[in-house]
Amino acid sequence: MAVGPDTLPELKPVDGFRIGVASAGIKKPGRRDIVLMEIPEGASVAGVFTKNAFCAAPVTLCKKHLGMSAPRYLLVNTGNANAGTGEQGLIDATRCCDAVAERTGVAREAVLPFSTGVIGEPLPVDKIIAALDAAKADLNEANWLNAAYGIMTTDTRPKGACEQFIHNGRAVTLTGISKGAGMIMPNMATMLGYVATDAAVETQLLQQWLSAATEQSFNRITVDGDTSTNDSCVLVATGRSGVQIDGKDPELTEKFVSALNRLMLSLAQAIVRDGEGATKFVEVRVEEAASVREALDVAYTIAHSPLVKTALYASDPNWGRILACVGRAGVEKLDLYALEIYLNDVCIVEKGGRAAAYTEEQGQAVMNGEEILIRVVLKRGEVRESVWTTDLSTDYVHINADYRS
Amino acid sequence: MAVGPDTLPELKPVDGFRIGVASAGIKKPGRRDIVLMEIPEGASVAGVFTKNAFCAAPVTLCKKHLGMSAPRYLLVNTGNANAGTGEQGLIDATRCCDAVAERTGVAREAVLPFSTGVIGEPLPVDKIIAALDAAKADLNEANWLNAAYGIMTTDTRPKGACEQFIHNGRAVTLTGISKGAGMIMPNMATMLGYVATDAAVETQLLQQWLSAATEQSFNRITVDGDTSTNDSCVLVATGRSGVQIDGKDPELTEKFVSALNRLMLSLAQAIVRDGEGATKFVEVRVEEAASVREALDVAYTIAHSPLVKTALYASDPNWGRILACVGRAGVEKLDLYALEIYLNDVCIVEKGGRAAAYTEEQGQAVMNGEEILIRVVLKRGEVRESVWTTDLSTDYVHINADYRS
Repeated sequence: MAVGPDTLPELKPVDGFRIGVASAGIKKPGRRDIVLMEIPEGASVAGVFTKNAFCAAPVTLCKKHLGMSAPRYLLVNTGNANAGTGEQGLIDATRCCDAVAERTGVAREAVLPFSTGVIGEPLPVDKIIAALDAAKADLNEANWLNAAYGIMTTDTRPKGACEQFIHNGRAVTLTGISKGAGMIMPNMATMLGYVATDAAVETQLLQQWLSAATEQSFNRITVDGDTSTNDSCVLVATGRSGVQIDGKDPELTEKFVSALNRLMLSLAQAIVRDGEGATKFVEVRVEEAASVREALDVAYTIAHSPLVKTALYASDPNWGRILACVGRAGVEKLDLYALEIYLNDVCIVEKGGRAAAYTEEQGQAVMNGEEILIRVVLKRGEVRESVWTTDLSTDYVHINADYRS
Repeated sequence: MAVGPDTLPELKPVDGFRIGVASAGIKKPGRRDIVLMEIPEGASVAGVFTKNAFCAAPVTLCKKHLGMSAPRYLLVNTGNANAGTGEQGLIDATRCCDAVAERTGVAREAVLPFSTGVIGEPLPVDKIIAALDAAKADLNEANWLNAAYGIMTTDTRPKGACEQFIHNGRAVTLTGISKGAGMIMPNMATMLGYVATDAAVETQLLQQWLSAATEQSFNRITVDGDTSTNDSCVLVATGRSGVQIDGKDPELTEKFVSALNRLMLSLAQAIVRDGEGATKFVEVRVEEAASVREALDVAYTIAHSPLVKTALYASDPNWGRILACVGRAGVEKLDLYALEIYLNDVCIVEKGGRAAAYTEEQGQAVMNGEEILIRVVLKRGEVRESVWTTDLSTDYVHINADYRS
């Protein structure tokens, strides 16, 4: 079950970026669970990774390799996270990198490994290596949709997005895929994102723009920057469009950065829409806050409240639970009588209590929808921030109580 | 459904403290939903209250009245929280106090009001006032068990505790009752606690000991000191035993304080055991931490993780989810290879991964029990802290999705 139509835009090839998909039979025989991505020489690569102290072995290796060499291959497996696997996990991830390096003639450090799935089980390295020749043979630029399927775990649908713009008669393409998982507390989900563009962008600038875009997308569906053991997002610029973006042309920069931001937000929101057991897609928007910090404190307190989330599941306009969240979000000197809370355009709270004109029927009409906006107007300043979340359903509990069996 | 045997100790009367119970028909006709407690003249009264900025009208009034006059009556209603009710809520709570004052000849400020139930509905003041004569007529010292029933909302069983000790041949009694509610994120539950003792304790000391006991009991089943709109706990010392406790006799002080702490912890744990949909009673204990702060950060991250809680519900020894929580708890310079994690006495994590001697059967045997200890040994210092929580079941979602209907 997921919220919104199950459609994907056309995922246009990115010149120079090739993808191969194969089956290693890690959890299910025949499932295509290995994705190999090839980065052309001369490309720039940026990455953002989990801040979890227990980061998985592949994440440790990714960060190390990124600092040593220009990446040429990304290797993703599903079904096993290679997390909580101690020293052996690092040895296993390194063996996978070595196997790719041997088959492609690049250095070990030019391979970045990614794993997602169950924590704490040994990585089935031999199975993965046995599938590499097939993945390599499959490498082609038109493989984005297969890759979107290939990186899925408990996702019920593939996730992808594509943006294009024209500069001086040349088309610049950005294409990306993502995967999510449990979304009630998304910092525990494994989120993976892979984005490529044929623009030419120098590495430092690419990293800066990726970090900023992540902050407003993947980090707006998670709490306090906390992340799972395996979260990773990689952005590759192949340069093959011939369009150089160096930050000196404000209009061109704006075109690229806004396309990147839209694409990343779309990938992040697709993860929420497909949250485990999700029946609602909810934006929690805090307006007129005095700071980003307090806006996010209020938004996350609402977005993570099991009582609000079960009310959303029940389509119950239980505004008292939302109000209680605002009150306990830790905002100093909150003026209870000034702030307002809305469900979509319906004012539900004003002057410290239920809005005078509010009727239960109005609230019910909003809650019956699949897409809901909870809007808190703090009347303290000019900052506005949004986070995206889902409801908490009995299906969520079933999925996560049964996941390992 | 609740965890552990449904038994209460004998709730012994506290000399001078009388309780009356009556039915106002707030939610269900005939249910005894009003509890009136009478405090004798000369008694000391201490209170702790929610830190939620949106605290309910009765809480606002309680705090105000406590500073103005010696309390003589406590009035509790269930079925309606009188929270999120703006100015009208304060007027309504004041009318209730006035009605008690008229019937008993005390000042309005000598009455402390308490409400628990649905947020945001107008308090049915007339119904409450109409039941006051019956509550007053029922006042007697042997009414603790009826009061424990009277303050219940979604609780499935009454909660009470009793402690006695002898000093110089005189018995000192402490008796208390509590109520809880949703426990997945207990800061959203309404917790009420009423404790009386026949010891003689001066108000300032009583407040100090109540605050300290609350910190180690009610505040160990909640997050970051956050609380609901209505949480309140009151401690009354009638002095009728003739035993004066002024802090100058270390042995006597220790007897009283440890009895109070045991009683408060018992009342708090009873709330967890009866958490909505609870099938497990879980202690999360962090040992060898460098500070209380980091111990609690780790403990609460585990205790609030929906992924850990659904695994507990499934009796699944999914240690990877616990490990991931430790990693994202924000502890600086955590040594992943030094720390250890146990389920009861079974070591599940050491050296950054699954413990070498661990078998799934051992973990399963622990998880099959109703009472589970998750123990994290950080190897950073000497601080030890525990929090108590429950699992997350499909029943929790049902209860909270259906609560208002």
